Amino acid sequence: MELWFTEKHTENVNFSIKVDRHVYSGQSEFQRIDLFDSLEFGRFLTLDGYMMLTEKDEFIYHEMIVHVPMSVLPNVKKILVIGGGDGGAVRELVRYPEIERIDLVEIDRQVVEACRKYLPQTAGKLDDPRVTIHYADGLKFVRSKQDEYDLIIVDSTDPFGPGEGLFTKEFYGNCYKALTDCGAMVNQHESPFYPVDAVAMQRAHKRIIDSFPISRVYQAHIPTYPSGHWLFGFASKKYHPVEDFNAAGWKAHGMKTKYYNDKIHIGAFALPNYVKDLLEEME
Amino acid sequence: MELWFTEKHTENVNFSIKVDRHVYSGQSEFQRIDLFDSLEFGRFLTLDGYMMLTEKDEFIYHEMIVHVPMSVLPNVKKILVIGGGDGGAVRELVRYPEIERIDLVEIDRQVVEACRKYLPQTAGKLDDPRVTIHYADGLKFVRSKQDEYDLIIVDSTDPFGPGEGLFTKEFYGNCYKALTDCGAMVNQHESPFYPVDAVAMQRAHKRIIDSFPISRVYQAHIPTYPSGHWLFGFASKKYHPVEDFNAAGWKAHGMKTKYYNDKIHIGAFALPNYVKDLLEEME
Repeated sequence: MELWFTEKHTENVNFSIKVDRHVYSGQSEFQRIDLFDSLEFGRFLTLDGYMMLTEKDEFIYHEMIVHVPMSVLPNVKKILVIGGGDGGAVRELVRYPEIERIDLVEIDRQVVEACRKYLPQTAGKLDDPRVTIHYADGLKFVRSKQDEYDLIIVDSTDPFGPGEGLFTKEFYGNCYKALTDCGAMVNQHESPFYPVDAVAMQRAHKRIIDSFPISRVYQAHIPTYPSGHWLFGFASKKYHPVEDFNAAGWKAHGMKTKYYNDKIHIGAFALPNYVKDLLEEME
Repeated sequence: MELWFTEKHTENVNFSIKVDRHVYSGQSEFQRIDLFDSLEFGRFLTLDGYMMLTEKDEFIYHEMIVHVPMSVLPNVKKILVIGGGDGGAVRELVRYPEIERIDLVEIDRQVVEACRKYLPQTAGKLDDPRVTIHYADGLKFVRSKQDEYDLIIVDSTDPFGPGEGLFTKEFYGNCYKALTDCGAMVNQHESPFYPVDAVAMQRAHKRIIDSFPISRVYQAHIPTYPSGHWLFGFASKKYHPVEDFNAAGWKAHGMKTKYYNDKIHIGAFALPNYVKDLLEEME
């Protein structure tokens, strides 16, 4: 049998994965949710047909969205994760004993339920006693918060469909307000390569720099995302992601990681000229 | 009309590009050569059906294989490029006025002729008076050379077919011998992500460290290569690619680049843990 999942990375580029089994398919109030088993990537999750994560390379995304801010910000106790219903970001966060509370705001309960059942690799730590799951719209949830979180992680889908509101100026402004004086927001920031992604990336950058005094973009190699070149944003009130990087403090945790390390931390902020140019156009 | 070029990145992963026109197809003594026009990547070149370069992202590969060694080694006058019949590496090299001679050893004359005709973007500088093209097997060419080149760039295809000999211990040993006392060899080093590529990468690393006292691996985001995460090797007799990096010297050239810069130079050598582990297994 030949069964192939295909994602259009652009109108003119297809990325296809040979599927062994279509494990789950559901239609929630918000989106279509699918899980597949594949030889190359293990189990993988798609929302509305877009790749969210695979068992094989999700460690890259989740390590980079969590350990970069955690090794810069001192004294992180209370965290807000917006999106991230798969639990991967939470899994990395609960490795830090100093974290006291994690609010996970996921709009789609069905994503969490499907991941709990079919993706224990990422969802397995959602039951940590420090984690509270709120099934709510992140945009609305954050509106009422003030001076409350040391770190906000925006682990959103792409800027269309249910994730659209998480790329607006209003949302970033509310995140700023919801953060403590030493706080920072990290977000998945799309890709610089294909023009359709680059435009979304530039738009997000513009809105974030309008809301935060410090805003830097960093990158990772994520093979199953379009072009494999993916960006994250680090937006902060006080701490600079490179100048205030506490390598010794992070190493003292003795945490084993598969992608992240202290040299990668610095290297990830070294962007190619063409990416710098795209960002600087917005500044 | 729908016309799609597909490359199997593995047995279970396809990468497909919508093609506007099949511009050229030839069968040489060594391989099948094809050129296509596409909306997303412009013109692209394949050898035996494997992606060699596209107009849209070739700058990443060629800048990274040339400017990294050129900003480390002092006083580079004589260079050997093995493979690279598309001319992209030569195009970047001829930007350095201090280079006096470039020997390009390409096994397949038909590749050079097709690129001269159909890919002036990369082949346009092959007529530089400092360039001599030798249509020969790189493995044999380098055997007779001793203490002659300041830099050898191994711009090969993958380690099967015509490129196979350029991944052997004998070849790397001969490159070492062909280099001056201050010389270095840079090679395309495959990818760490898919197991089939990672094995080739590990094998090359093992053979290179057996031949050179200094050997480091660096990376770039190349969207049209498998996984988008591609590696290069820097193997040297004397100079370390990071410790001896001459950022000021390179900047003094005033060269405009689209990917490479001084921060990328350092960042490219910051490898993910899983890649470091693969390399260290061989050390």
